[in-house]
Amino acid sequence: MPVDQLTDTVEALHTALPGRVEADPALLAPYTADRSGHRSAGTPLAAVRARSIEDVQTVCRIASAAGIPVVTRGAGTGLAGGAIAGPGEIILSLAEMDGILEISEENRLAVVEPGILNGRLNAILADYGLWWAPDPASKDISTVGGNIAMNAGGLLCAKYGVTREAVLALKVVLADGTLLSIGHRTVKGVTGYDLCALMIGSEGTMGIIVEATLKLLPLTEGGTVTIGAFFDTVEEAAAAASSVTRRGHMPAIMELMDRRTLECVARYTGQDLSGRGAYLLIQCDGPAAEDTAQQIANVAWNAGGTVEITADPDETRRLLDFRRSAFPALEAMGTMLVEDIAVPRDRMTDAFAVIRSLEEKYDVLIPTTCHAGDGNLHPTFVFEGTEVPSAIWAAAGELFTTALDLGGTLTGEHGIGLLKRDWLQDELGPEQYEIQRRIKQVFDPHNILNPGKVFPPHA
Amino acid sequence: MPVDQLTDTVEALHTALPGRVEADPALLAPYTADRSGHRSAGTPLAAVRARSIEDVQTVCRIASAAGIPVVTRGAGTGLAGGAIAGPGEIILSLAEMDGILEISEENRLAVVEPGILNGRLNAILADYGLWWAPDPASKDISTVGGNIAMNAGGLLCAKYGVTREAVLALKVVLADGTLLSIGHRTVKGVTGYDLCALMIGSEGTMGIIVEATLKLLPLTEGGTVTIGAFFDTVEEAAAAASSVTRRGHMPAIMELMDRRTLECVARYTGQDLSGRGAYLLIQCDGPAAEDTAQQIANVAWNAGGTVEITADPDETRRLLDFRRSAFPALEAMGTMLVEDIAVPRDRMTDAFAVIRSLEEKYDVLIPTTCHAGDGNLHPTFVFEGTEVPSAIWAAAGELFTTALDLGGTLTGEHGIGLLKRDWLQDELGPEQYEIQRRIKQVFDPHNILNPGKVFPPHA
Repeated sequence: MPVDQLTDTVEALHTALPGRVEADPALLAPYTADRSGHRSAGTPLAAVRARSIEDVQTVCRIASAAGIPVVTRGAGTGLAGGAIAGPGEIILSLAEMDGILEISEENRLAVVEPGILNGRLNAILADYGLWWAPDPASKDISTVGGNIAMNAGGLLCAKYGVTREAVLALKVVLADGTLLSIGHRTVKGVTGYDLCALMIGSEGTMGIIVEATLKLLPLTEGGTVTIGAFFDTVEEAAAAASSVTRRGHMPAIMELMDRRTLECVARYTGQDLSGRGAYLLIQCDGPAAEDTAQQIANVAWNAGGTVEITADPDETRRLLDFRRSAFPALEAMGTMLVEDIAVPRDRMTDAFAVIRSLEEKYDVLIPTTCHAGDGNLHPTFVFEGTEVPSAIWAAAGELFTTALDLGGTLTGEHGIGLLKRDWLQDELGPEQYEIQRRIKQVFDPHNILNPGKVFPPHA
Repeated sequence: MPVDQLTDTVEALHTALPGRVEADPALLAPYTADRSGHRSAGTPLAAVRARSIEDVQTVCRIASAAGIPVVTRGAGTGLAGGAIAGPGEIILSLAEMDGILEISEENRLAVVEPGILNGRLNAILADYGLWWAPDPASKDISTVGGNIAMNAGGLLCAKYGVTREAVLALKVVLADGTLLSIGHRTVKGVTGYDLCALMIGSEGTMGIIVEATLKLLPLTEGGTVTIGAFFDTVEEAAAAASSVTRRGHMPAIMELMDRRTLECVARYTGQDLSGRGAYLLIQCDGPAAEDTAQQIANVAWNAGGTVEITADPDETRRLLDFRRSAFPALEAMGTMLVEDIAVPRDRMTDAFAVIRSLEEKYDVLIPTTCHAGDGNLHPTFVFEGTEVPSAIWAAAGELFTTALDLGGTLTGEHGIGLLKRDWLQDELGPEQYEIQRRIKQVFDPHNILNPGKVFPPHA
């Protein structure tokens, strides 16, 4: 694109949205990265901080007229490179559109702007006796709009569902500036195709989410009861998790840490975890929490676990903190590439076996935590330096293939973004890939919105 | 289309699927109707009873080559005219594809063919301690494939969600015979766009569902506790329902019957219901059912209700049967046009007020039952004869407009089909309507699949 046209576009943005456009390369650097470890090839053309739906429409019209890409960004906490921008691209930040427009107790819904942080929203909802279920680990620093754009998961999904189940309706701005209202304010609604569900998880490639009507739940009565159990092997821990599911229990949280992760935690915290082969953290909520937790503790004990069970707040925090220490412990070991495959629950043990074999084959460390209630594994490659070594990409590639071979998926909750776009077609197959590409074209015929994300460029 | 070509097509079907093609007009009559009261203009060209995915692909290839429409049909229990076929159309029955291919307790899923009846599936799943949550009133006679094609609702949606939340993956045959696998076998999965959610509720216009991977739930421990409460007015009953929600309760069932419905039931069953203005039926399940039900009974009592509460199976059946008698009671009064609007919960009283005013304005009876937990109303027009009188269509049209004005939707759970296609654009708006039409074209460029349903012809 001629430099003149780029300059004209930045000028047009400055004129239309005075004081809200940043074009100083030094200040644009943060927009070239997220939490995936990935960086774009250089600084974007400009960043715009939108404050209203009209602002977003204005940016889209200017960008469309010039054929310049728009990369939408919330808090930049993504793990797939989905919201990073490079040269010649406009970054559109929705972080300042962070208001709550409505909370309705009777309709159990909230209408919010996309930039509000998940944790902040939930803190406010608690005063109404309500909560919004999506709980990505990033919830205190990630936006609701970003959670929706990625169809975020978290710890509670086996019981409370993914983000898709927690959104009733969206307002979305298309590439040409058209404002679309999709979904329903009602609990049920089957008029036409479900574009709201389609938009959730589309990673900024179809439309820009500018308002969301969220389905809320009443806060659960009673407290939680938490179980921590060490096992000799990851197979034993996985078998225990499997027994919990097969017996019909629905714990809110069921997390697994493997031996490699425990070794990292031991080194990081100074705890003696020698001889510990795996850890299972389970939390029950709801009116029958105590009874259910006791039954689950028995299951874990019968499966060979060394079991703690508690309803005491301090003890609970200690058990949860042990799980939470995994990420910092890994971070302290080097640079991380956090992977995110999901497999059917009955293939978790197979997935762990493959991970162990990849460690040997590629001489890399892959400590792995797992949302054991839903088969979503986070094998985490740890390495030195800032560039992902080619051996790790090779191992990651084998890991993805394994996930598909086991009947699973490339990504359980982090999304495709830049990181996995080269494997997208492997999972979808050529026919579905082509259909998805053509659906993208229906919404964004000139490929203005987040081009190169999800789908490889020039696909 | 030349008669020769039609004859050739029927011949090609006979040759490809010997013994499974019906072309005798006398035997094709059932396919011209469903339970909506709507009839197509005449008998279809032929009916094919598919027994395998390959059969479906064969039919699609033959139909596509000749440009002949294919109308997919399960049990024909729909309420929107979505699965009825007329002259020059092939009806493709999936009723004989009714097998269960897999039940996995550990993965909490079942893989089924589309023609299996919902009730039969659930009877089998019960032996595994599992169930599939979608519970349309038709469940004993409607197919799982039909439930998915319409994104069926039911009584339990406020607590357990609609059909969309209960489907993990689908196999779908496209108009040209391509077989597509969409969705995931895993609980979580965010690879690419969510075509599985998009396909659910698409009413046979995008693809033909030939296999479904269903997300199951463990059967709830403990029994149910049921509450029946009469109120003087529908406003009081709606206020009671609203209090139940605002206090954070999640009953499994919360059904409302208005005075007009009670009058019909009284006439049908001979009960003395004089002075009764509305009825609320509430059922609680789960481990805290008893405690929750007691609290809800108090709420209903404080709202002015005459309250019964029971955990006794016979008494429970009596309370449920009272609600179930509404439909037969209405049927005994004449021909029914069952409507299906949904409004935000806090607008239910407004919706009832409009229904009463429409009764006066058009001099018609509109007894109304309501899924009060989710604001889904079934205003039912009762009339003599088989043709819907124009006054009733006019009243229905006003009802739809009212639903939209109240922030609701044309259809909560029955779908658009033929019956509401003329109002589709009113709800979607022109831009979204156009996008939906173009998405249909991506899947079915020659408009072979269920043309004229959902979207008006020549739209």
